[in-house]
Amino acid sequence: MTQATELYFDFLCPYAWRGVELAAVLRAEGEDFTLRHFSLVEGNHADNARDLTWRITEQTLDAPEGEGYMKYQTPSLRAFLASHAAALQGEAAHWAFTLALFRAHHERREPLSDAAIHVAAQEAGLDQAAFAAALAEEDARRAELRAELDAAREVGVFGTPTFVLPTGEAAYYRFETLTREADKAREWWTLYRTVLTSEAGIGTIKRAKNRPPRRA
Amino acid sequence: MTQATELYFDFLCPYAWRGVELAAVLRAEGEDFTLRHFSLVEGNHADNARDLTWRITEQTLDAPEGEGYMKYQTPSLRAFLASHAAALQGEAAHWAFTLALFRAHHERREPLSDAAIHVAAQEAGLDQAAFAAALAEEDARRAELRAELDAAREVGVFGTPTFVLPTGEAAYYRFETLTREADKAREWWTLYRTVLTSEAGIGTIKRAKNRPPRRA
Repeated sequence: MTQATELYFDFLCPYAWRGVELAAVLRAEGEDFTLRHFSLVEGNHADNARDLTWRITEQTLDAPEGEGYMKYQTPSLRAFLASHAAALQGEAAHWAFTLALFRAHHERREPLSDAAIHVAAQEAGLDQAAFAAALAEEDARRAELRAELDAAREVGVFGTPTFVLPTGEAAYYRFETLTREADKAREWWTLYRTVLTSEAGIGTIKRAKNRPPRRA
Repeated sequence: MTQATELYFDFLCPYAWRGVELAAVLRAEGEDFTLRHFSLVEGNHADNARDLTWRITEQTLDAPEGEGYMKYQTPSLRAFLASHAAALQGEAAHWAFTLALFRAHHERREPLSDAAIHVAAQEAGLDQAAFAAALAEEDARRAELRAELDAAREVGVFGTPTFVLPTGEAAYYRFETLTREADKAREWWTLYRTVLTSEAGIGTIKRAKNRPPRRA
């Protein structure tokens, strides 16, 4: 059994980005996290309200980018498959690629395009030929993604970022402030774990709709 | 301006019960809480999905207790009106009545009936004649309730218990474990306030569906 905390994310989600940045800081301090994918488009799809009938892994990458779901479906699938391709080059490469693509999308506001993925792979120092070859093996990447989405469903992930502690506790953790400072990252991570492991048995702390959290 | 924390609750809700018990322990330690009503039946009513068109304060107390909403509508309205009647006898009386009725319903599993309300009023040491007279002034109690439900809507309350701190932060706080111990109550309250006032700007910590919180 792994002693790593699993971190479920979707490249679409700005809160997942903050979560991945937080985990990246903590990794540098020796905390162990494993990157996992959860699809918001699949999870929130109206066709899946009762049973899981609509899978993002069965959709074409050529679907037009239109309104509603169609604005997100192809970009998120494209990013997930690229993420699995990057993961084949090892954990460090996967983290570097994931951070690079998150920053391109949420910090520089670039779309999750093939071009952005190509640049992120370069920034992450990936072996470009191997990355292209892994992307070309699309069926294998789709199978890997599908397996992770099934695992997320098993945990009951409904949003990102969701962390699954080595001791089994799992919860969505949404916060507004991006940090790359070790002391803050440690403090916010300890606070989250304290909530999850409290004897109170805390299920939810959720801010009232008209009272947004304070922003730093 | 008040320096009290507002505590929104519905007698229907077992989590609100735990929240009121927690606040009662903290009150004994000098922390200031004000009891406020929020109606889950009104808040979750399908007719209110877009605009507020269905008000619990406009419903009859003679509505039959059937399935779905109708299982909860009359009992919750009855309990709210009684709570406002008790509040006229002062804050201590209101707390005593609220705790007595919560315990009858969630600890002894009694329905929120006229009989249970009568017993709770006795347990709370209310002036029975004054309580009956206040209950009989039904229009006034309905108006008071309606005003509180409007205030809850203003805050954006969506579930109970929701606490509104004197500094303005407001959030739903759902936990499983009932405590009447001062040290635990203090610890769980401090944890909640730390989450709400953290520089992280935490909006939500919510456990994944298939991983329930630990129970003591």
